[in-house]
Amino acid sequence: MKPNKQLLLKKRPVGLPEKDTWELAEADLPQPNEGEFLIKCEYISLDPAMRGWLNDTKSYIPPVQINEVMRAGGVGKIIESKHSDFKEGDYVYGQTGVQQYVTSDGKGFHTIDPDIAPLPMYLGTLGMTGMTAYFGILEVGELQEGDAVLVSGAAGAVGSVVGQIAKIKNCKVIGIAGGTDKCNYLVEELGMDGAIDYKNEDIRVKLKEYFPKGIDVYFDNVGGEILDLALGRLAMHARIVICGAISQYNNTSAIKGPSNYLALLVNRASMKGMVVFDYAKDYGKASVQLGQWIREGKLKSKEDIHIGIEKFYESFLRLFTGEKLGKLVLKVSED
Amino acid sequence: MKPNKQLLLKKRPVGLPEKDTWELAEADLPQPNEGEFLIKCEYISLDPAMRGWLNDTKSYIPPVQINEVMRAGGVGKIIESKHSDFKEGDYVYGQTGVQQYVTSDGKGFHTIDPDIAPLPMYLGTLGMTGMTAYFGILEVGELQEGDAVLVSGAAGAVGSVVGQIAKIKNCKVIGIAGGTDKCNYLVEELGMDGAIDYKNEDIRVKLKEYFPKGIDVYFDNVGGEILDLALGRLAMHARIVICGAISQYNNTSAIKGPSNYLALLVNRASMKGMVVFDYAKDYGKASVQLGQWIREGKLKSKEDIHIGIEKFYESFLRLFTGEKLGKLVLKVSED
Repeated sequence: MKPNKQLLLKKRPVGLPEKDTWELAEADLPQPNEGEFLIKCEYISLDPAMRGWLNDTKSYIPPVQINEVMRAGGVGKIIESKHSDFKEGDYVYGQTGVQQYVTSDGKGFHTIDPDIAPLPMYLGTLGMTGMTAYFGILEVGELQEGDAVLVSGAAGAVGSVVGQIAKIKNCKVIGIAGGTDKCNYLVEELGMDGAIDYKNEDIRVKLKEYFPKGIDVYFDNVGGEILDLALGRLAMHARIVICGAISQYNNTSAIKGPSNYLALLVNRASMKGMVVFDYAKDYGKASVQLGQWIREGKLKSKEDIHIGIEKFYESFLRLFTGEKLGKLVLKVSED
Repeated sequence: MKPNKQLLLKKRPVGLPEKDTWELAEADLPQPNEGEFLIKCEYISLDPAMRGWLNDTKSYIPPVQINEVMRAGGVGKIIESKHSDFKEGDYVYGQTGVQQYVTSDGKGFHTIDPDIAPLPMYLGTLGMTGMTAYFGILEVGELQEGDAVLVSGAAGAVGSVVGQIAKIKNCKVIGIAGGTDKCNYLVEELGMDGAIDYKNEDIRVKLKEYFPKGIDVYFDNVGGEILDLALGRLAMHARIVICGAISQYNNTSAIKGPSNYLALLVNRASMKGMVVFDYAKDYGKASVQLGQWIREGKLKSKEDIHIGIEKFYESFLRLFTGEKLGKLVLKVSED
């Protein structure tokens, strides 16, 4: 048995990935060259965007190649270093991939401090999903104090932070999530002003109730029918942030375009796409602010941690079945 | 026979309006009260937006009511005045409706000078369609020198001005229109860099040819399939101006939403709706600039004039069959 378990992409899925999309393989422990270091991967980030990386299409990032280690952000500990800027014992964040060990020349990696926050939080609220929420709602959504804000996927890693930031900015915030438990969580734990259970409630009726004057900002993580209903309830000069479209990622037919898009014209509204990497130069500033809100108790960070690289597939599927709360994280090894 | 022919809305059309949507009626000559004036309507503006005013749905403006005179912008001559700011002999622009005579208290009317430009031009390049083009491409589209610009409905009243403004601003401009004659007109008369004949050419292939680095600004008058193809060819940080969707106005089924809308995300692009009325306070400034470009020979204004209020229906249909060039105008009376 070789010591480095790795998850390799074996085929390109059509629709919802099946288990044989990936294969768990074993490799030798990689050896760092001069100017490199060796990381023991501790936690891996599971994100809806990973589904897009499996498609052989032009996008904001190249697809994962067949037989390559599955791409993933991760945090881990440096156990050997031949790099002048990183030393043994440092904890780092970067694109580790879904595997137990990886070497790096440091490109795209930065150190993190496990004494300031638990490691998994660096994959969520203090990581890419937190950054996405922060820049998405504040910069792309041009959030103003007092705005009426709707967020879908509101119990998820990005949505839960978006909703809380909007509350901090004195907005009215309504979240959409699936099921009573999640909806209670949004209102009781995260302090949102209301929640819509898309599995059991009439979204159109609820939007009318919650937004008598229309939606100023809609932060869209899901696309599909919910995007159309939000378009049908816009306020003048509304902003829609297109962050994702999880309802459409496993489509086998064409993506459903928003048939209400002419509401943009009627309401002089905008719909704008975002990719978080564009804000990389300001990650530091955002981290400081998010960290401060967490310390002040204004921002709650929730991670849903599953254990063992062997559980990758079952855990990944939870992104699409909705059986998770907050940021989905895989602890790589049981120890 | 009463002297004032008026076109009344008689029923709400489904799909492309049929002739009995309207009825030509006759009314007495209206008499101006104190503070009002009487206009002899000379030219009426025919616009795709009129189709929307027939639907009994919430929009940026209330629908025309059954048995009301059909709403339309028009220009005419004041033949009697009891208003201190408007005098007999003045020419005015305003919402005259489709009729031969109308009184007004002056609200929404302003005088125009027939010595500076022919009357029909005040319905087109120096009127609402010119304003729409001007603010749409420059403000909503945030046009930058050197941008690669695509405009649909490019031989139409708005599109032809959009394309010419973009050329004045040193952009590369490709227009989409139907048929060889219109396409030749775009390149040879209006100076666009290329044209795509959507009736006879493969738009996808042509977009790839004309926009090797992608589209920076797409000015959309048509919606439907062409919007989707443009989305599939965006450059990073592209802007889409949603000005209209003429391909969808007579739909009897749901509007086709742009299924490629996630291209907004991949390209960090935006799609923004506009209604020209929002720029009313700056119409004057725009008129001066447009007038100057016309005098300098940089901007050509084209009106397609049909004669007689009796010809309203046949003329209106040309908006949707494409059998027109430039601004469609109805001369109210034969004299």
